[in-house]
Amino acid sequence: MNLIILYENDFLSENLVTISGRRFEHIINFYKPKIGQKLSVGLLGSKMGFGSVTEIFSSSIKLYVELISEPPIKLPVKLILSLPRPKSFKKAIHAAVTLGVKEIYIIESWKVEKSFWKSPVLESNALHEELILALEQAKDTILPKIYFKKLFKPFIEDELPLIKADKKFVAHPYNSRRVSEKIKEESIIAIGPEGGFTEYEISKFKNVGFETLTIGERILRVEFAIPTFISSLFL
Amino acid sequence: MNLIILYENDFLSENLVTISGRRFEHIINFYKPKIGQKLSVGLLGSKMGFGSVTEIFSSSIKLYVELISEPPIKLPVKLILSLPRPKSFKKAIHAAVTLGVKEIYIIESWKVEKSFWKSPVLESNALHEELILALEQAKDTILPKIYFKKLFKPFIEDELPLIKADKKFVAHPYNSRRVSEKIKEESIIAIGPEGGFTEYEISKFKNVGFETLTIGERILRVEFAIPTFISSLFL
Repeated sequence: MNLIILYENDFLSENLVTISGRRFEHIINFYKPKIGQKLSVGLLGSKMGFGSVTEIFSSSIKLYVELISEPPIKLPVKLILSLPRPKSFKKAIHAAVTLGVKEIYIIESWKVEKSFWKSPVLESNALHEELILALEQAKDTILPKIYFKKLFKPFIEDELPLIKADKKFVAHPYNSRRVSEKIKEESIIAIGPEGGFTEYEISKFKNVGFETLTIGERILRVEFAIPTFISSLFL
Repeated sequence: MNLIILYENDFLSENLVTISGRRFEHIINFYKPKIGQKLSVGLLGSKMGFGSVTEIFSSSIKLYVELISEPPIKLPVKLILSLPRPKSFKKAIHAAVTLGVKEIYIIESWKVEKSFWKSPVLESNALHEELILALEQAKDTILPKIYFKKLFKPFIEDELPLIKADKKFVAHPYNSRRVSEKIKEESIIAIGPEGGFTEYEISKFKNVGFETLTIGERILRVEFAIPTFISSLFL
């Protein structure tokens, strides 16, 4: 936890917060805080700054908070991700969110096993917890928006053309050009399952203006393919 | 397992191999192979190709192997990595190896907890198994060389200047320039612990010709910092 995320209802008054539960346990175990110690804090959806420890109780801690800086700017890229297997889903989301992606579309594709859609990791409480952990890791306060699209064709044909993006890429190991430039424009990138999108799926992406790109012959786990593609293009 | 790694002693004759143990179990469970089915194989340290299933027994499988292609070329970058906590170590190694890094120096630094050096994940058998899994994932047959350097100063001052590299970078979030170009030259990149190298450590790297680079303010887990830096510069 590099940043303690604060919620509106942590505030006792304009500058005073009280924290309990998981965050309290983590603060005690990780920072071993003393009165007066300054901890990095950020109000969810808003500014970041410091919280000075004013009181430590057995199950809560009080901080005097000064929110002085803006969260880091978002990456100019939206992510379309074929639903990974549950074990990879959390890592994939973590990777994208810590890099600063703020809009993620989780989609159906041919190689997605139907059972993946029933995984408890997709439930909104579990997902929210993962997103908060990623913001705490990255030092950011802005939650990404995550959308689930369980029908491939209607998403690609009807919804995708309405999503604003100046550049559109789909990761595809075959007959694709290598990444060679850094992109500054607002973009969207689609990353398939480990076995790749099918040729049909690639053709559907191409029909709505996507260019295929590769980063080489090696096959990466999806949680590493995400930072690899995004970083190659945008960082 | 996208590639079945073969060892010299799997070979019964020039083209016939028999596989048992973990690889056999995986082949059966993952591929559910039939006689005649072609599987991707590669001889450790050598060529890759296909193995056609000729016989399936209760605890082994025979393949007729044709090795026809070279493994993917290595990335032109060596990695210096401050020893991560054991939980991250395996993931960090996996990330680097699947990207094609073939020379990794695991080093001491101020923020490395001494206990990390005693972790069983560093033992050579455990490490070898991780490396094989990464080659199987990436579809590659060339093992990387991993060196452990438990003394920071002698490594930086005496050994590092002898390691060949045309460009030398150290990841550092403060007072560093952003990555802006793709590098083709043989390079070496040093990635610190999550809290970063100390100013003293950074100065030691600078003394031997390293330039500090940043990919932004967000703090990434080491296993994601590796693909992020490497990909931003080299892919």
